[in-house]
Amino acid sequence: MVEAVETMDGWYSLHDLRSIDWTSWKMASSEERQAAIHEFEQLLTKWEAVEAAKNGSHVVYTVVGQKADIMFMFLRPTMVELNELETEFNKSKFAEYLQPAYSYVSVVELSKYSEPKEGPDLESYPRIQERLKPILPKWEHMCFYPMDKRRQGEDNWYATEKDVRAKLLYEHSKTGRKYTGKVKQIITGSFGFDDWEWGVTLFAHDPVQLKKIVYEMRFDEVSARFGEFGEFFVGNHLPKENVPAFLQV
Amino acid sequence: MVEAVETMDGWYSLHDLRSIDWTSWKMASSEERQAAIHEFEQLLTKWEAVEAAKNGSHVVYTVVGQKADIMFMFLRPTMVELNELETEFNKSKFAEYLQPAYSYVSVVELSKYSEPKEGPDLESYPRIQERLKPILPKWEHMCFYPMDKRRQGEDNWYATEKDVRAKLLYEHSKTGRKYTGKVKQIITGSFGFDDWEWGVTLFAHDPVQLKKIVYEMRFDEVSARFGEFGEFFVGNHLPKENVPAFLQV
Amino acid sequence: MVEAVETMDGWYSLHDLRSIDWTSWKMASSEERQAAIHEFEQLLTKWEAVEAAKNGSHVVYTVVGQKADIMFMFLRPTMVELNELETEFNKSKFAEYLQPAYSYVSVVELSKYSEPKEGPDLESYPRIQERLKPILPKWEHMCFYPMDKRRQGEDNWYATEKDVRAKLLYEHSKTGRKYTGKVKQIITGSFGFDDWEWGVTLFAHDPVQLKKIVYEMRFDEVSARFGEFGEFFVGNHLPKENVPAFLQV
Amino acid sequence: MVEAVETMDGWYSLHDLRSIDWTSWKMASSEERQAAIHEFEQLLTKWEAVEAAKNGSHVVYTVVGQKADIMFMFLRPTMVELNELETEFNKSKFAEYLQPAYSYVSVVELSKYSEPKEGPDLESYPRIQERLKPILPKWEHMCFYPMDKRRQGEDNWYATEKDVRAKLLYEHSKTGRKYTGKVKQIITGSFGFDDWEWGVTLFAHDPVQLKKIVYEMRFDEVSARFGEFGEFFVGNHLPKENVPAFLQV
Amino acid sequence: MVEAVETMDGWYSLHDLRSIDWTSWKMASSEERQAAIHEFEQLLTKWEAVEAAKNGSHVVYTVVGQKADIMFMFLRPTMVELNELETEFNKSKFAEYLQPAYSYVSVVELSKYSEPKEGPDLESYPRIQERLKPILPKWEHMCFYPMDKRRQGEDNWYATEKDVRAKLLYEHSKTGRKYTGKVKQIITGSFGFDDWEWGVTLFAHDPVQLKKIVYEMRFDEVSARFGEFGEFFVGNHLPKENVPAFLQV
Repeated sequence: MVEAVETMDGWYSLHDLRSIDWTSWKMASSEERQAAIHEFEQLLTKWEAVEAAKNGSHVVYTVVGQKADIMFMFLRPTMVELNELETEFNKSKFAEYLQPAYSYVSVVELSKYSEPKEGPDLESYPRIQERLKPILPKWEHMCFYPMDKRRQGEDNWYATEKDVRAKLLYEHSKTGRKYTGKVKQIITGSFGFDDWEWGVTLFAHDPVQLKKIVYEMRFDEVSARFGEFGEFFVGNHLPKENVPAFLQV
Repeated sequence: MVEAVETMDGWYSLHDLRSIDWTSWKMASSEERQAAIHEFEQLLTKWEAVEAAKNGSHVVYTVVGQKADIMFMFLRPTMVELNELETEFNKSKFAEYLQPAYSYVSVVELSKYSEPKEGPDLESYPRIQERLKPILPKWEHMCFYPMDKRRQGEDNWYATEKDVRAKLLYEHSKTGRKYTGKVKQIITGSFGFDDWEWGVTLFAHDPVQLKKIVYEMRFDEVSARFGEFGEFFVGNHLPKENVPAFLQV
Repeated sequence: MVEAVETMDGWYSLHDLRSIDWTSWKMASSEERQAAIHEFEQLLTKWEAVEAAKNGSHVVYTVVGQKADIMFMFLRPTMVELNELETEFNKSKFAEYLQPAYSYVSVVELSKYSEPKEGPDLESYPRIQERLKPILPKWEHMCFYPMDKRRQGEDNWYATEKDVRAKLLYEHSKTGRKYTGKVKQIITGSFGFDDWEWGVTLFAHDPVQLKKIVYEMRFDEVSARFGEFGEFFVGNHLPKENVPAFLQV
Repeated sequence: MVEAVETMDGWYSLHDLRSIDWTSWKMASSEERQAAIHEFEQLLTKWEAVEAAKNGSHVVYTVVGQKADIMFMFLRPTMVELNELETEFNKSKFAEYLQPAYSYVSVVELSKYSEPKEGPDLESYPRIQERLKPILPKWEHMCFYPMDKRRQGEDNWYATEKDVRAKLLYEHSKTGRKYTGKVKQIITGSFGFDDWEWGVTLFAHDPVQLKKIVYEMRFDEVSARFGEFGEFFVGNHLPKENVPAFLQV
Repeated sequence: MVEAVETMDGWYSLHDLRSIDWTSWKMASSEERQAAIHEFEQLLTKWEAVEAAKNGSHVVYTVVGQKADIMFMFLRPTMVELNELETEFNKSKFAEYLQPAYSYVSVVELSKYSEPKEGPDLESYPRIQERLKPILPKWEHMCFYPMDKRRQGEDNWYATEKDVRAKLLYEHSKTGRKYTGKVKQIITGSFGFDDWEWGVTLFAHDPVQLKKIVYEMRFDEVSARFGEFGEFFVGNHLPKENVPAFLQV
C-alpha cells in the first residue's frame, strides 16, 4: 500500500455548459428576449460583485462546435452557494431557452507533492490561499477537460510509490512552466463529486497554445502511462458587453 | 475456486434522482404548483412517520450540477414496499415536473469478513440489526456512487483468496475509521438488482471530507487494484421546511 | 481450435421492458384509461389461453427503479409468433402510454455439456422438451440480465478446451443447485439475435435470494474469469387482477 | 509490417433500420395512412424494377424487439444512388411516422485470401461478379451485425502474417460451409464508411440456424481471438403484399 | 520520457454534421422553405467569397446513412471566426429544420517528423503555408473520422522513441503515396479542442478508394499497434446549385 499525499482544497467549482435552443429563442417575442437578456445581465452583474468582494469568481465563454453554446465556470466558498447559484440560474428566464449540455463539480486543489515542507500551516500562507481561491482570468480562450490517473496492470498510479509520483509530477510541471504567460492552468479535484478524478481548466490568449501544451504534456511519462482523459470543450471569451450581440436574432 | 463470504442483508434501498423541468414548472399556475408542493409535503410527512416507526428511512438532497436536481434515498423492509413507494411518487402531481435522471436498486449489506465468529446468530444481534436497518443521517452533504470489484488478469477479486480479501478490506476499514464523525458510510449490495455490484452512500458535514475519504481510500490496495467506479452524485441536504423555498419561482 | 458443444433450442423468447408515461396517462380521460386497461386485460387473457394450451408462456412484473416500469417475458414456438405478439401489443391503446426501455431477443437453450450421452434423440426426451418449452413460474420476484463469456488474453472461453469448460460449468451448476426451491433459472441463448450471448432470467420468492445466488456464483471460476455482465433488471410479480390498481391514478 | 490482402468490391450497401411511431400512425387519418402505404408500395415496386434490371437489390424485414420495427438492406452500384434512394425514402409520407434506429454503410466485398491465383482479371469473372453484385435472398429470417478484427496485444489481426490469416479464414469458411442451404451470408466492408470494419448479413429459413452458425463460429480461432462484435439485429421477412396488414391499426 | 515533435498549425477547422428534420421541413410553407433555401444560398455565397479571398475554405457533402444528412467542413484563420460562422449558421432559418448530429473542432496540422531540417523558418515556406491553409478539394466523396494514438502496455505511442515514431510514420506515408491522385488527405490536430487527438478528412473521386486506403493503412504498424479510431462519416459532394433539388419536397 502506497502513501497518499494530502491535498489543500479551496473554492468549490461548477463548470456548467448549455446549448441554446435557437429555434425557441427566435420564436420568443422581442420583449421576452429583451427581458431574458436583461435578467441574465443582472445575474452577471451580481456575480461580478461577488468576484469584486473576493467571495468567488466566474467566467463565461462561448463554445465552438455542437457540444454546447455557452460554458460557465463558477467558484464559490461553499457547495451550498454553488448550488444556490445554479438553482437561481435555472429559474431565470434565459435558462428556459437553454438545454443542459455538460457539467462538472469539483474543488480547487493543490497537492503537497511539490511544496517544500513548511509545516502544517502551509495552507494558510497568502500565496497558497490566493491559488486556492483564485480570481479566474478572462483570457481570450478556455479549454476544459476532466481526467483520471490510470489504474491498469503496470500503469497503476495508486500503486506507485510516492517519491516516484512526486518525480513524475515534477517533470510534468517543468513542461507546464514552458507555457508561463501563454497558458494559465487551474486544477480542481473531483473525487466523490463527479465522474472523473480531476478537472483541468486552461486559459490562453492564443488557442493554439492550448493544443500545444496538451500535446507536449502527453509525452510526459505521467500522462503517457497514467493519463486517462474525458471530453474536451473549447471556447472563446464572452464579455458581458457582447452578450446582447451574441444573442441578437 | 475461492470461497465466497456470506453477507447479511437488511432493508432494500432505492436511490432515485430526478431533474426538475423548470420551464414546465414555471408555466404551471401558482395553484398547480401549490397543490404539487402540498402533495409532496404530505408524502414527506408520510415517509417521516414510517421512519419514526422504524419501518424504513429516507433522505432528500438537492444535487449540484446538471446530472439531477433532487436525490432521494429510500430504505424499506421489502422490495414490494420500495416499488409501491416509487409508484406512488410517480403518480404524484410533483412528479409531472420531474424527469428521471438516475436510480439504483440495492439492499443494505454487511459482510462477515471482519466480524468475529459469533456463530450463526450474528445477524440477529441488535447492533447488527441496527446497521442493517439504519435510520439515515440527515447530515449536510451526501455523495452516492456505485462500484464493482475488478475481474481482470492479475487483479481479479473473485479469484483472490478469502484471507487476502479479508486483509485488504481490513486495511481499507482502517482508512475509513480515520473519518469517524466526519463521514458516515452505508454500503448496499446490488448483485442481481442493478448494474454495479455495490452502492456507496456517504454523508458528511463538510463536503471536502467526501473528497478526502474517496481520494485517500483510492490508495488502499483494495481500491487501487480492484475498485471500478461508476457515476458520482453529490448534493446538499434539503429539509422538508426548505422545499417551498427551493421550488419558489 | 477447440470444439464447440451442441445446444438444444426451444421456444423463442422476448424480454420487453417499458416505462409508463404517467403524465400522459393522467391526462387521458377516465374512459380512455378504462379502455386501455380493458384491452390490455384482454391481451393478458389471450396470452393465458396460449399458455394453457402449452403453445407458449409469459410473465408480467413491475420493475423497481427508473430503468422501466413493466417487464414482460414472452415465450413462443416461432420467431414469427413472437414478432406478431409484439406488434399486436405495440398497436394496443395501452402501448400509447408506454416508452420502450429495453428488450432482449433469445431462445430457450440447453447445452449438452452436462447431459449424459443419450444419443441423438436426447432433444426429444419429455424432460428435455419440458425444459426447452417451459411454463414460466409466477414467483414473487424476477431478475433479468444478459451476459457474455469473456474472450481476453488468458481468459478466453472460446479458446478453452471442451472438457475444461464442462468442468467449470459443472462446478457452477453445483452452486446453482444450492438454491433449489429458492431460485428458478431459465437460460436463453442470443447468438445472432441480440447484443449479448445469453440471457439469464431468475425467479425467486425472496428477492435476497436473487442477490445471494448472483453474488455466490461470481466466485465460481467460470464467472470470475469468464463472465461479462450487461444491465440488471429486477421486479415484483404483477398478477392480472392487480393491473387496475397498479394503473389507478 | 504484414502484407494486406486486396479486396474486390461490388455494390454499395445501406442497412437502414427504423422504428414506427405507432401512436402518430394511429392518430393519422385513415386517408393519410392509406396514402402513406400506397406511396411506400410504389417505392417498393420501383426498387423491384431496379432489382429485376439487375441494377441493385433490396430486402425488407420486420425486426423483433425494441431496437427497430423495420430493417431494409439496399444494394446499389454507386454511393450516389444509395444516397438518392435514402433521401427519396426520407421525403416520403411513410417516413414521417418512422424514427431512425440504426444504419450501416458498406460495400459488398470479397477478399482474395481464399481465391486461386487466377491473375488480375479475377474480379471480372462472371461467378465473382455475381457475388459482388448479389440479388439478395428473400429468405424467412435475416440477421445483421457489424464487426471488427481485434488489435490487442498478442491478438492483433493486422500484425498477423498473411498466411496465418489465410489459414484462419480458411478454417472459418469450413464452419460456414456446414450451413450451406441453411444460411446464406453476405460480407460487406466498411473501412472508411462506418464505425466497424465489416458488416455481416445472414439469411436463414429457420432462425435457429442463425444462432447455431454464430455460436459455432465463435469457437473458430479467427473469432475466438480476433472477433469484436457490434449490435445484432434479427427479423422476419416482410413481403410487399403483407405491408398493409403489418401497418393495419 | 520521450521527445515530443513540434507541430506546425494552420487554419482552425470545424466539421459540422446535421440531420434534417424532414417532417418539419415538409410542414413548413413553400414560402418558408424558399426563404430558408435562399438565406442558406447566401451564406454559401458569402463563404465562397471568403474562400476566393484565401481567408478560409469550406465544403458541403450529403451524408449516407442515418448519422447525419449534411456534413460541412469549415476552415478559418481564427477560432473566433469559426465560432462566429457557426453562430451565424445556427441563427439562420434553415438551421431551424436541422438537428445537431456531430461536430469536431481541430486545426490543420503538419508535424516536423518527416520534414528535412530546414531550420526554424520552415513554417513560413510557401509550400508549407499552402498546406497549413488549404483550399479544400470539392471531390465527389468525402470521409471523416477522428483518431487517437494508443497508450496501452507495450503499444504506447507517447512512450515510443522519436526516431521509431518517425520511421513508423514514414512507412505509413508510403502507403498514402500509393493513392496520390485518388485520395487527398487533410490532417487536423485536436489536442485540447475535442475528444480525440486528430481528425482525418479524406477526399476521393471514387468512394471505394476511401475504403481501400483506410483498409490498407490498417496493416501499417503505426495503425495496427497504435491506431484507435472514432466514428466514421461518409458523404457525396453537394454543389451549391444542387441544394434546391436536394431540399425539394
